[in-house]
Amino acid sequence: MIVNSMPRYEILSEDAMAALDRGWRRIHTELGIEFILPEAVDVFRQAGQTIEGDSVVKLDPDFVLEQVAKAPREFDLQARNPTRNIHVGGDHMAFASVYGCPFVREGHERREATMADFENLVRLSQAFDQLDSPGGTICEPNDRPLDSRHLDMVFALQTLSDKPYMGSVTSGANAADTIRMGEILFGGREAIEQAPVSISLINVNSPLRYDDRMLAALLEYVRANQAVVITPFILMGAMSPVTVPAALTQQIAEALAGIALAQLVRPGCPVVFGSFLSNTDMQSGSPSFGTPESALGLLCTGQVARHFGLPWRSGGGLTSSQTVDAQAAYEAMMTMLPTFLAGANFVMHSAGWLESGLVSCYEKFIVDVEILRMLQEEFKPLEITDDTIAFSAHEEVGHGGHFLGATHTLERFRECFYRPLLSSTENFERWQRLGGRDATARAGEIWRETLVTYEEPAMDPAIREELAEFVTRRRAELGD
Amino acid sequence: MIVNSMPRYEILSEDAMAALDRGWRRIHTELGIEFILPEAVDVFRQAGQTIEGDSVVKLDPDFVLEQVAKAPREFDLQARNPTRNIHVGGDHMAFASVYGCPFVREGHERREATMADFENLVRLSQAFDQLDSPGGTICEPNDRPLDSRHLDMVFALQTLSDKPYMGSVTSGANAADTIRMGEILFGGREAIEQAPVSISLINVNSPLRYDDRMLAALLEYVRANQAVVITPFILMGAMSPVTVPAALTQQIAEALAGIALAQLVRPGCPVVFGSFLSNTDMQSGSPSFGTPESALGLLCTGQVARHFGLPWRSGGGLTSSQTVDAQAAYEAMMTMLPTFLAGANFVMHSAGWLESGLVSCYEKFIVDVEILRMLQEEFKPLEITDDTIAFSAHEEVGHGGHFLGATHTLERFRECFYRPLLSSTENFERWQRLGGRDATARAGEIWRETLVTYEEPAMDPAIREELAEFVTRRRAELGD
Repeated sequence: MIVNSMPRYEILSEDAMAALDRGWRRIHTELGIEFILPEAVDVFRQAGQTIEGDSVVKLDPDFVLEQVAKAPREFDLQARNPTRNIHVGGDHMAFASVYGCPFVREGHERREATMADFENLVRLSQAFDQLDSPGGTICEPNDRPLDSRHLDMVFALQTLSDKPYMGSVTSGANAADTIRMGEILFGGREAIEQAPVSISLINVNSPLRYDDRMLAALLEYVRANQAVVITPFILMGAMSPVTVPAALTQQIAEALAGIALAQLVRPGCPVVFGSFLSNTDMQSGSPSFGTPESALGLLCTGQVARHFGLPWRSGGGLTSSQTVDAQAAYEAMMTMLPTFLAGANFVMHSAGWLESGLVSCYEKFIVDVEILRMLQEEFKPLEITDDTIAFSAHEEVGHGGHFLGATHTLERFRECFYRPLLSSTENFERWQRLGGRDATARAGEIWRETLVTYEEPAMDPAIREELAEFVTRRRAELGD
Repeated sequence: MIVNSMPRYEILSEDAMAALDRGWRRIHTELGIEFILPEAVDVFRQAGQTIEGDSVVKLDPDFVLEQVAKAPREFDLQARNPTRNIHVGGDHMAFASVYGCPFVREGHERREATMADFENLVRLSQAFDQLDSPGGTICEPNDRPLDSRHLDMVFALQTLSDKPYMGSVTSGANAADTIRMGEILFGGREAIEQAPVSISLINVNSPLRYDDRMLAALLEYVRANQAVVITPFILMGAMSPVTVPAALTQQIAEALAGIALAQLVRPGCPVVFGSFLSNTDMQSGSPSFGTPESALGLLCTGQVARHFGLPWRSGGGLTSSQTVDAQAAYEAMMTMLPTFLAGANFVMHSAGWLESGLVSCYEKFIVDVEILRMLQEEFKPLEITDDTIAFSAHEEVGHGGHFLGATHTLERFRECFYRPLLSSTENFERWQRLGGRDATARAGEIWRETLVTYEEPAMDPAIREELAEFVTRRRAELGD
């Protein structure tokens, strides 16, 4: 976790913000938001909102803002190792690994992800300090039964890492399992209600619709005071109109509606304004990541979330590239640098994302960690004082001299500059002599070495046993 | 050329700027700047500055600022095709290709650059609208004699492109040749003195020293009212102390001294505050590009140049990578995105830079053009109005619908999003079927196709003949 005390880069004028405000209010009042879960609709009905048909809720925008105002501006997320706790909000930025990929890529091999991959990627997330959380579904363990794999995932997240983790959202029951496992790990319901021990991703079925499974999961988490990231899932041109202003407006309308629901169910529960905003390639019909439009969306979303006093989430090292090439890197940087400029509080997909999110890639994981390391260094405030200006070094070296051997340099050379993990500055001859390996090949060596030196964080054996027993029992109940 | 009307990202506080101001003033008064050319020293002597020994000029900072104030805040640079004129300063950003590389890389082959490479790279610079100038020494034509190759280069720049170009700076005589060729192309001395037709790179031999050849070139250009970019050449740890604040201070001290000299020789002549600021890898001793330190330096330099009311120059798509891999791309973006945030007016090394500037690379050229295209799109102001918010599209599509077939979309789908030159969004199966080529392989196809479709811009045959005769005559005079 870093504190980003550099300035925010904000591009929305007051007029622009006012237009966005008029826009989402109009969506709430004239079109409403659809909630495909009667229980959720009832919550709004009892709060006096207008219901149309079975599931469309027409919302009073001022009422919505009253609910949103109950959400905490910042909150703490507990880790089983308290030194790994995450503070969400303010100038803090926390980074979680890639999420939701059915495939993995390892070198030139692309294949269905397995539980072994899941565990490896959690280990890598644990090993790098630049990551504050392994996230949740770091890849889909396709070799485990669909009904119970959430148990395997949460168990791996809880045992192979001591950082905060994300919970299952595929159903209310799976969310309840995640909560129960959190209670076991942290010592009971009271302990996890005091401050959340999980943060879970509730995607909106955009446009303007929440589906039943996500809503059921949302309600479970919120009742247990567990954090939720409420994220409109918007690929412009498919799930929203084709303009950035329209997508931003829709994003506000959708996110605020879900946040209002959460606050109605449990006032004060920790929520995050989520953003997953990119565009469709209108030529191929495929999703497109790392685009100028997504970068603009990111910059605006930060300003919007602050306008509503909410912590906010974005991605990440996003790219559409099929392999870890130049495109993968410039697209990742096209979203990650604006993420820092905009001061996102919880950054998903920070490491490992490839191929529009279909692939968790080991080598890309290392490329992204390097990008994070660089940006975490860049976004430290620069101390410019008479001392750091180092006049004495000039006195020492003189005109046309060389600073490599200067006392001022020798006293500082170990720590004065960023030291790369992956990048090479070797001259060509030496680089060639060392094998002429490109960044992707070197990344392959780094993740393999990291797994070799990885140490599983210690855990009370009794708790571990209780977790394992819970998983075994629930798996049997689910018939797997 | 673009107008970047997005906000500038400025990170220096008033206190920090004041510390930088104290710093450069102290360097000017206590240490002075060395000028290894008696003619330049005389200019300062006659203006009442203190000379120490043969070559060190101790400067009165207020006197320096008086001279700097004579420099234009903005100016026009003429192209032989007036639609290609460049405006330097204000919110304008102009982009020139890579400069100064002895080697080229083409696919997997790295070799000494030749005149044929030079010509090809000028053609590529002419072909892409994202580039406003081919620059100057786009690579070193090593197959041409050292003494006269500047003639070949200027001739190629003038004939294969109709964009503004950079002149030779390797000696006063070579600068004079460049000026004479400008006179031939633009119709005489008066025509080129009205507004500059060349812009040339005067590097400082940092720390705190200007060498004789660069100074001689500077004086030639300035007397002809040709633009110069005065650039402290700083790799922190080698040519400056190891802190960013120290490098910034030194950069100001060096640049302002050269700009003062230019203004003393010809008040009002067009100058650009140059910056080439990165750091040494203190482990390998090699230069290191695309680093957090260089990005910070860039952001600060923009603010500093505006503080002095000067247009400013930076690079570019910088990287230390030996090949066109992920590192090359993330490092290029690490400098190019801050270049836009900081609003650099004249951006050198915008396309083709590889291997710490030793290599002009064809494939990297295309990667960089794609990065420029994306950023030039991103830094357009976003129009957020009730109209762009597109409420009607939501009315059309409804809850949970799809926007691909919506009228609002169909009316806009061709132009609504950025359309990549190089990046691929193909799904994996289709990408594999098409050959599974990574971005670098695709870049190879793009530059080859571009050379095939390149059209040489028309030129008055009489002028072309006069230029060719000048080159032939001067080459003979130089004994080549």
